[in-house]
Amino acid sequence: MKKVSDAVIRRLPKYYRYLIELEREGVMKISSGELSEKMGLNASQIRQDFNCFGGFGQQGFGYHVEVLKNEIQSILNLDKKHNCIIVGMGNIGQALAGYANFMNEGFYIAATFDVNERLVGTTVNGCKILALDEMERFVQENVVEIGIICTPEAHAMEVVERMRRCGIRAIWNFAPIDIQLEGVTVENVHLSDSLYTLSYRLSEQKNNEE
Amino acid sequence: MKKVSDAVIRRLPKYYRYLIELEREGVMKISSGELSEKMGLNASQIRQDFNCFGGFGQQGFGYHVEVLKNEIQSILNLDKKHNCIIVGMGNIGQALAGYANFMNEGFYIAATFDVNERLVGTTVNGCKILALDEMERFVQENVVEIGIICTPEAHAMEVVERMRRCGIRAIWNFAPIDIQLEGVTVENVHLSDSLYTLSYRLSEQKNNEE
Repeated sequence: MKKVSDAVIRRLPKYYRYLIELEREGVMKISSGELSEKMGLNASQIRQDFNCFGGFGQQGFGYHVEVLKNEIQSILNLDKKHNCIIVGMGNIGQALAGYANFMNEGFYIAATFDVNERLVGTTVNGCKILALDEMERFVQENVVEIGIICTPEAHAMEVVERMRRCGIRAIWNFAPIDIQLEGVTVENVHLSDSLYTLSYRLSEQKNNEE
Repeated sequence: MKKVSDAVIRRLPKYYRYLIELEREGVMKISSGELSEKMGLNASQIRQDFNCFGGFGQQGFGYHVEVLKNEIQSILNLDKKHNCIIVGMGNIGQALAGYANFMNEGFYIAATFDVNERLVGTTVNGCKILALDEMERFVQENVVEIGIICTPEAHAMEVVERMRRCGIRAIWNFAPIDIQLEGVTVENVHLSDSLYTLSYRLSEQKNNEE
Protein backbone atom coordinates (compact mmCIF):
# COMPACT_ATOMS: atom_id res chain seq x y z
CA MET A 1 0.00 0.00 0.00
CA LYS A 2 1.26 3.50 -0.84
CA LYS A 3 2.23 5.63 2.14
CA VAL A 4 -0.56 8.14 2.73
CA SER A 5 0.06 11.33 4.74
CA ASP A 6 -1.16 11.61 8.29
CA ALA A 7 -3.34 14.63 7.46
CA VAL A 8 -5.23 12.66 4.80
CA ILE A 9 -5.73 9.67 7.09
CA ARG A 10 -7.11 11.94 9.80
CA ARG A 11 -9.70 13.32 7.38
CA LEU A 12 -10.96 9.85 6.37
CA PRO A 13 -13.09 9.28 9.51
CA LYS A 14 -14.75 12.63 8.88
CA TYR A 15 -15.56 11.73 5.26
CA TYR A 16 -16.89 8.43 6.50
CA ARG A 17 -19.19 10.14 9.02
CA TYR A 18 -20.58 12.54 6.45
CA LEU A 19 -21.15 9.76 3.89
CA ILE A 20 -23.05 7.69 6.45
CA GLU A 21 -25.17 10.75 7.15
CA LEU A 22 -25.80 11.34 3.41
CA GLU A 23 -26.69 7.70 2.89
CA ARG A 24 -29.14 7.92 5.79
CA GLU A 25 -30.72 10.98 4.18
CA GLY A 26 -31.21 9.01 0.97
CA VAL A 27 -28.63 10.96 -1.07
CA MET A 28 -27.35 8.74 -3.91
CA LYS A 29 -24.63 10.88 -5.46
CA ILE A 30 -22.68 13.99 -4.53
CA SER A 31 -20.11 16.23 -6.22
CA SER A 32 -16.85 17.22 -4.55
CA GLY A 33 -18.26 20.77 -4.53
CA GLU A 34 -21.39 19.81 -2.59
CA LEU A 35 -19.35 17.63 -0.23
CA SER A 36 -16.88 20.46 0.36
CA GLU A 37 -19.67 22.88 1.25
CA LYS A 38 -21.25 20.42 3.68
CA MET A 39 -17.95 19.57 5.36
CA GLY A 40 -16.30 22.98 5.30
CA LEU A 41 -13.35 21.59 3.32
CA ASN A 42 -11.85 22.68 0.01
CA ALA A 43 -13.25 20.78 -3.03
CA SER A 44 -9.85 20.26 -4.63
CA GLN A 45 -8.51 18.93 -1.34
CA ILE A 46 -11.34 16.39 -1.26
CA ARG A 47 -10.48 15.26 -4.81
CA GLN A 48 -6.79 15.06 -3.91
CA ASP A 49 -7.53 13.05 -0.77
CA PHE A 50 -9.60 10.51 -2.68
CA ASN A 51 -6.97 10.33 -5.41
CA CYS A 52 -4.53 8.95 -2.81
CA PHE A 53 -6.67 5.84 -2.86
CA GLY A 54 -7.29 5.73 -6.60
CA GLY A 55 -10.05 8.24 -7.17
CA PHE A 56 -13.62 6.83 -6.79
CA GLY A 57 -15.25 9.72 -8.70
CA GLN A 58 -16.50 9.93 -12.28
CA GLN A 59 -15.96 13.12 -14.25
CA GLY A 60 -19.28 14.94 -14.58
CA PHE A 61 -21.12 12.58 -12.23
CA GLY A 62 -19.46 13.08 -8.87
CA TYR A 63 -19.29 10.40 -6.24
CA HIS A 64 -21.67 7.54 -5.70
CA VAL A 65 -22.38 7.93 -1.96
CA GLU A 66 -22.81 4.26 -1.05
CA VAL A 67 -19.83 3.08 -3.10
CA LEU A 68 -17.60 5.81 -1.67
CA LYS A 69 -18.76 5.07 1.87
CA ASN A 70 -18.00 1.38 1.42
CA GLU A 71 -14.57 2.15 -0.03
CA ILE A 72 -13.62 4.38 2.88
CA GLN A 73 -15.03 1.86 5.34
CA SER A 74 -12.75 -0.74 3.81
CA ILE A 75 -9.71 1.59 3.76
CA LEU A 76 -10.30 2.33 7.45
CA ASN A 77 -10.43 -1.40 8.08
CA LEU A 78 -13.94 -0.99 9.53
CA ASP A 79 -15.39 -3.87 7.50
CA LYS A 80 -13.80 -6.35 9.91
CA LYS A 81 -14.47 -7.15 13.53
CA HIS A 82 -11.90 -5.93 16.05
CA ASN A 83 -11.73 -7.35 19.54
CA CYS A 84 -10.79 -4.77 22.17
CA ILE A 85 -10.09 -4.87 25.87
CA ILE A 86 -10.38 -1.96 28.29
CA VAL A 87 -8.07 -1.59 31.26
CA GLY A 88 -9.25 0.84 33.93
CA MET A 89 -12.99 0.81 34.52
CA GLY A 90 -13.44 4.21 36.13
CA ASN A 91 -15.75 6.80 34.61
CA ILE A 92 -14.16 6.96 31.16
CA GLY A 93 -13.68 3.19 30.90
CA GLN A 94 -17.31 2.59 31.82
CA ALA A 95 -18.48 5.20 29.33
CA LEU A 96 -16.47 3.58 26.52
CA ALA A 97 -17.72 0.12 27.47
CA GLY A 98 -21.25 1.43 27.06
CA TYR A 99 -20.72 3.38 23.85
CA ALA A 100 -22.87 1.41 21.42
CA ASN A 101 -21.65 3.43 18.41
CA PHE A 102 -18.35 1.58 18.44
CA MET A 103 -20.07 -1.81 18.23
CA ASN A 104 -21.86 -0.71 15.06
CA GLU A 105 -18.50 -0.33 13.39
CA GLY A 106 -17.16 -3.72 14.45
CA PHE A 107 -15.29 -2.78 17.61
CA TYR A 108 -16.24 -5.36 20.18
CA ILE A 109 -15.30 -5.05 23.86
CA ALA A 110 -14.17 -8.61 24.61
CA ALA A 111 -13.26 -7.95 28.24
CA THR A 112 -12.59 -5.20 30.74
CA PHE A 113 -10.09 -5.15 33.60
CA ASP A 114 -9.40 -3.21 36.76
CA VAL A 115 -7.30 -3.51 39.89
CA ASN A 116 -10.04 -2.19 42.20
CA GLU A 117 -11.48 -5.12 44.15
CA ARG A 118 -14.83 -3.39 44.51
CA LEU A 119 -15.20 -3.27 40.71
CA VAL A 120 -13.82 -6.72 39.85
CA GLY A 121 -16.66 -9.19 39.37
CA THR A 122 -19.31 -6.55 38.70
CA THR A 123 -20.90 -6.10 35.29
CA VAL A 124 -20.99 -2.78 33.41
CA ASN A 125 -23.06 -2.50 30.22
CA GLY A 126 -23.02 -6.26 29.82
CA CYS A 127 -19.24 -6.44 30.31
CA LYS A 128 -17.92 -8.29 33.32
CA ILE A 129 -14.94 -6.57 34.93
CA LEU A 130 -12.05 -8.98 35.45
CA ALA A 131 -8.99 -8.63 37.67
CA LEU A 132 -6.06 -7.06 35.81
CA ASP A 133 -3.92 -10.08 36.66
CA GLU A 134 -6.11 -12.16 34.38
CA MET A 135 -5.33 -9.98 31.36
CA GLU A 136 -2.37 -11.98 30.03
CA ARG A 137 -4.28 -15.26 30.18
CA PHE A 138 -7.33 -13.71 28.51
CA VAL A 139 -5.28 -12.26 25.65
CA GLN A 140 -3.53 -15.60 25.13
CA GLU A 141 -6.86 -17.42 24.89
CA ASN A 142 -8.64 -14.82 22.75
CA VAL A 143 -7.73 -12.74 19.73
CA VAL A 144 -7.38 -9.16 20.98
CA GLU A 145 -6.26 -6.44 18.58
CA ILE A 146 -6.81 -3.21 20.45
CA GLY A 147 -6.00 -2.29 24.04
CA ILE A 148 -7.87 0.68 25.48
CA ILE A 149 -6.10 2.44 28.35
CA CYS A 150 -8.33 4.24 30.85
CA THR A 151 -6.08 3.96 33.88
CA PRO A 152 -4.65 6.89 35.82
CA GLU A 153 -1.51 8.35 34.28
CA ALA A 154 0.79 6.64 36.78
CA HIS A 155 -0.18 3.11 35.65
CA ALA A 156 -0.64 3.68 31.92
CA MET A 157 2.90 2.86 30.72
CA GLU A 158 3.09 -0.31 32.79
CA VAL A 159 -0.21 -1.57 31.37
CA VAL A 160 0.86 -0.72 27.80
CA GLU A 161 4.11 -2.67 28.31
CA ARG A 162 2.14 -5.67 29.56
CA MET A 163 -0.20 -5.41 26.58
CA ARG A 164 2.73 -5.33 24.18
CA ARG A 165 4.32 -8.35 25.84
CA CYS A 166 1.20 -10.41 25.20
CA GLY A 167 1.01 -9.32 21.58
CA ILE A 168 -1.35 -6.33 21.43
CA ARG A 169 -0.12 -3.98 18.72
CA ALA A 170 -2.65 -1.13 18.83
CA ILE A 171 -3.39 1.12 21.80
CA TRP A 172 -6.19 3.67 22.22
CA ASN A 173 -4.97 5.74 25.13
CA PHE A 174 -7.18 7.94 27.33
CA ALA A 175 -4.66 8.35 30.16
CA PRO A 176 -3.44 11.98 30.19
CA ILE A 177 0.03 11.15 28.83
CA ASP A 178 1.48 10.83 25.31
CA ILE A 179 2.46 7.19 24.95
CA GLN A 180 5.06 6.30 22.32
CA LEU A 181 6.32 2.72 22.14
CA GLU A 182 8.34 0.94 19.44
CA GLY A 183 6.31 -1.62 17.53
CA VAL A 184 2.97 -0.46 18.90
CA THR A 185 0.56 1.91 17.16
CA VAL A 186 -0.87 4.38 19.65
CA GLU A 187 -3.65 6.94 19.40
CA ASN A 188 -3.44 9.30 22.36
CA VAL A 189 -6.76 10.97 23.13
CA HIS A 190 -6.52 14.20 25.09
CA LEU A 191 -10.07 15.34 25.77
CA SER A 192 -8.81 18.47 27.48
CA ASP A 193 -7.04 19.69 24.31
CA SER A 194 -10.33 20.52 22.63
CA LEU A 195 -11.66 22.11 25.82
CA TYR A 196 -8.57 24.34 25.97
CA THR A 197 -9.06 25.28 22.30
CA LEU A 198 -12.64 26.18 23.12
CA SER A 199 -11.43 28.28 26.03
CA TYR A 200 -9.02 30.12 23.69
CA ARG A 201 -11.81 30.82 21.18
CA LEU A 202 -14.04 32.09 23.95
CA SER A 203 -11.47 34.71 24.93
CA GLU A 204 -10.90 35.58 21.24
CA GLN A 205 -14.68 36.08 20.90
CA LYS A 206 -14.76 38.37 23.92
CA ASN A 207 -11.78 40.39 22.69
CA ASN A 208 -13.42 40.90 19.31
CA GLU A 209 -16.53 42.23 20.98
CA GLU A 210 -14.71 44.72 23.14
CA MET B 1 -5.32 40.42 19.15
CA LYS B 2 -3.66 39.22 15.93
CA LYS B 3 -5.49 36.40 14.15
CA VAL B 4 -3.59 33.17 14.82
CA SER B 5 -4.00 30.13 12.55
CA ASP B 6 -6.11 27.19 13.67
CA ALA B 7 -3.15 24.80 13.42
CA VAL B 8 -1.10 26.90 15.87
CA ILE B 9 -3.99 27.17 18.32
CA ARG B 10 -4.49 23.41 18.23
CA ARG B 11 -0.84 22.88 19.19
CA LEU B 12 -1.02 25.21 22.22
CA PRO B 13 -2.77 22.67 24.50
CA LYS B 14 -0.06 20.16 23.67
CA TYR B 15 2.70 22.64 24.54
CA TYR B 16 0.86 23.39 27.73
CA ARG B 17 0.69 19.70 28.69
CA TYR B 18 4.38 19.17 28.05
CA LEU B 19 5.37 22.28 29.98
CA ILE B 20 3.31 21.19 32.99
CA GLU B 21 5.09 17.84 32.80
CA LEU B 22 8.51 19.51 32.59
CA GLU B 23 7.71 21.78 35.51
CA ARG B 24 6.61 18.75 37.53
CA GLU B 25 9.95 17.08 36.73
CA GLY B 26 11.77 20.16 38.05
CA VAL B 27 13.09 21.31 34.65
CA MET B 28 13.74 25.07 34.76
CA LYS B 29 14.68 25.85 31.16
CA ILE B 30 14.48 24.13 27.81
CA SER B 31 15.66 24.89 24.25
CA SER B 32 13.35 24.64 21.26
CA GLY B 33 15.54 21.71 20.13
CA GLU B 34 14.99 19.76 23.35
CA LEU B 35 11.29 20.58 23.34
CA SER B 36 10.99 19.47 19.71
CA GLU B 37 12.62 16.13 20.46
CA LYS B 38 10.35 15.50 23.42
CA MET B 39 7.18 16.47 21.54
CA GLY B 40 8.01 15.04 18.13
CA LEU B 41 7.64 18.46 16.51
CA ASN B 42 10.02 20.50 14.38
CA ALA B 43 12.15 22.99 16.38
CA SER B 44 11.66 25.83 13.91
CA GLN B 45 7.91 25.22 13.99
CA ILE B 46 7.97 25.57 17.76
CA ARG B 47 9.85 28.88 17.49
CA GLN B 48 7.43 30.09 14.81
CA ASP B 49 4.42 29.09 16.92
CA PHE B 50 5.68 31.01 19.94
CA ASN B 51 6.56 33.99 17.75
CA CYS B 52 2.84 34.33 16.93
CA PHE B 53 2.44 35.45 20.53
CA GLY B 54 5.55 37.55 20.74
CA GLY B 55 8.37 35.08 21.30
CA PHE B 56 9.01 34.18 24.98
CA GLY B 57 12.52 32.78 24.29
CA GLN B 58 15.94 34.31 24.79
CA GLN B 59 18.66 33.71 22.22
CA GLY B 60 21.20 31.26 23.64
CA PHE B 61 19.16 30.54 26.76
CA GLY B 62 16.02 28.84 25.47
CA TYR B 63 12.69 29.01 27.24
CA HIS B 64 12.05 29.46 30.91
CA VAL B 65 9.64 26.58 31.58
CA GLU B 66 7.51 28.17 34.27
CA VAL B 67 7.25 31.54 32.47
CA LEU B 68 6.36 29.88 29.16
CA LYS B 69 3.80 27.64 30.86
CA ASN B 70 2.16 30.64 32.52
CA GLU B 71 2.11 32.57 29.23
CA ILE B 72 0.41 29.71 27.36
CA GLN B 73 -1.99 29.19 30.25
CA SER B 74 -2.96 32.82 29.95
CA ILE B 75 -3.25 32.70 26.12
CA LEU B 76 -5.52 29.66 26.46
CA ASN B 77 -7.62 31.61 28.94
CA LEU B 78 -7.00 28.91 31.55
CA ASP B 79 -6.05 31.39 34.27
CA LYS B 80 -9.74 32.20 34.79
CA LYS B 81 -12.61 30.15 36.16
CA HIS B 82 -15.16 28.93 33.60
CA ASN B 83 -18.59 27.74 34.67
CA CYS B 84 -19.89 24.85 32.58
CA ILE B 85 -23.13 22.91 32.43
CA ILE B 86 -23.56 19.40 31.06
CA VAL B 87 -26.76 18.32 29.31
CA GLY B 88 -27.22 14.59 28.94
CA MET B 89 -26.01 12.58 31.92
CA GLY B 90 -25.55 9.19 30.31
CA ASN B 91 -22.19 7.44 30.35
CA ILE B 92 -20.15 10.19 28.70
CA GLY B 93 -21.83 13.00 30.66
CA GLN B 94 -21.21 11.20 33.94
CA ALA B 95 -17.60 10.54 32.98
CA LEU B 96 -17.02 14.23 32.19
CA ALA B 97 -18.74 15.32 35.41
CA GLY B 98 -16.26 13.16 37.29
CA TYR B 99 -13.14 14.14 35.37
CA ALA B 100 -11.19 15.97 38.05
CA ASN B 101 -8.50 17.09 35.59
CA PHE B 102 -10.80 19.75 34.18
CA MET B 103 -11.37 21.29 37.60
CA ASN B 104 -7.63 21.77 38.03
CA GLU B 105 -7.67 24.07 35.01
CA GLY B 106 -10.60 26.16 36.19
CA PHE B 107 -13.48 24.42 34.44
CA TYR B 108 -16.20 24.06 37.02
CA ILE B 109 -19.32 21.97 36.42
CA ALA B 110 -22.00 24.30 37.82
CA ALA B 111 -24.94 22.03 37.03
CA THR B 112 -25.94 18.98 35.02
CA PHE B 113 -29.24 18.28 33.30
CA ASP B 114 -31.14 15.36 31.84
CA VAL B 115 -34.65 14.51 30.67
CA ASN B 116 -34.63 11.02 32.18
CA GLU B 117 -36.80 11.05 35.31
CA ARG B 118 -34.82 8.23 36.86
CA LEU B 119 -31.66 10.36 36.73
CA VAL B 120 -33.12 13.73 37.74
CA GLY B 121 -32.60 14.37 41.45
CA THR B 122 -29.74 11.90 41.78
CA THR B 123 -26.16 13.04 42.43
CA VAL B 124 -23.19 12.03 40.29
CA ASN B 125 -19.68 12.90 41.42
CA GLY B 126 -21.04 15.59 43.70
CA CYS B 127 -23.19 17.09 40.91
CA LYS B 128 -26.94 16.98 41.32
CA ILE B 129 -28.75 16.21 38.07
CA LEU B 130 -31.53 18.72 37.37
CA ALA B 131 -34.46 18.46 34.97
CA LEU B 132 -33.61 19.90 31.55
CA ASP B 133 -36.57 22.28 31.84
CA GLU B 134 -34.74 24.08 34.63
CA MET B 135 -31.78 24.89 32.39
CA GLU B 136 -32.94 28.33 31.21
CA ARG B 137 -33.70 29.50 34.74
CA PHE B 138 -30.35 28.19 36.01
CA VAL B 139 -28.38 29.94 33.26
CA GLN B 140 -30.23 33.21 33.93
CA GLU B 141 -29.38 33.05 37.62
CA ASN B 142 -25.78 31.91 37.20
CA VAL B 143 -22.91 32.86 34.93
CA VAL B 144 -22.45 29.94 32.54
CA GLU B 145 -19.88 30.18 29.77
CA ILE B 146 -19.63 26.68 28.34
CA GLY B 147 -22.38 24.21 27.47
CA ILE B 148 -21.34 20.57 27.23
CA ILE B 149 -23.57 18.43 25.00
CA CYS B 150 -23.71 14.73 25.84
CA THR B 151 -27.20 14.00 24.55
CA PRO B 152 -28.04 11.54 21.78
CA GLU B 153 -27.58 12.95 18.28
CA ALA B 154 -31.32 13.52 17.78
CA HIS B 155 -31.58 16.06 20.62
CA ALA B 156 -28.22 17.82 20.29
CA MET B 157 -29.23 20.66 17.95
CA GLU B 158 -32.34 21.51 19.95
CA VAL B 159 -30.32 21.74 23.18
CA VAL B 160 -27.65 23.89 21.48
CA GLU B 161 -30.37 26.27 20.22
CA ARG B 162 -31.79 26.55 23.73
CA MET B 163 -28.32 27.20 25.12
CA ARG B 164 -27.73 29.95 22.58
CA ARG B 165 -31.06 31.57 23.38
CA CYS B 166 -30.09 31.89 27.01
CA GLY B 167 -26.71 33.37 26.17
CA ILE B 168 -24.22 30.50 26.14
CA ARG B 169 -21.61 31.22 23.48
CA ALA B 170 -19.29 28.20 23.68
CA ILE B 171 -20.29 24.56 23.14
CA TRP B 172 -18.24 21.44 23.76
CA ASN B 173 -20.11 18.82 21.79
CA PHE B 174 -19.86 15.06 22.33
CA ALA B 175 -22.98 14.12 20.36
CA PRO B 176 -21.92 12.32 17.17
CA ILE B 177 -22.79 15.23 14.86
CA ASP B 178 -20.84 18.27 13.61
CA ILE B 179 -22.62 21.28 15.08
CA GLN B 180 -22.14 24.66 13.38
CA LEU B 181 -24.14 27.62 14.60
CA GLU B 182 -23.76 31.33 13.89
CA GLY B 183 -22.52 33.27 16.90
CA VAL B 184 -21.57 30.20 18.89
CA THR B 185 -18.10 28.70 19.14
CA VAL B 186 -18.28 24.92 18.95
CA GLU B 187 -15.71 22.20 19.50
CA ASN B 188 -17.05 18.93 18.14
CA VAL B 189 -15.42 15.89 19.75
CA HIS B 190 -15.63 12.69 17.73
CA LEU B 191 -14.07 9.97 19.84
CA SER B 192 -14.59 7.45 17.07
CA ASP B 193 -12.36 9.42 14.65
CA SER B 194 -9.23 8.46 16.55
CA LEU B 195 -10.42 4.87 16.87
CA TYR B 196 -10.91 4.71 13.10
CA THR B 197 -7.44 6.17 12.56
CA LEU B 198 -6.07 3.48 14.86
CA SER B 199 -7.95 0.87 12.86
CA TYR B 200 -6.37 2.20 9.65
CA ARG B 201 -2.87 2.07 11.14
CA LEU B 202 -3.49 -1.48 12.34
CA SER B 203 -4.24 -2.64 8.79
CA GLU B 204 -1.23 -0.66 7.49
CA GLN B 205 0.94 -2.44 10.07
CA LYS B 206 -0.37 -5.84 8.98
CA ASN B 207 0.16 -5.05 5.29
CA ASN B 208 3.74 -4.02 5.95
CA GLU B 209 4.42 -7.30 7.69
CA GLU B 210 3.00 -9.45 4.90
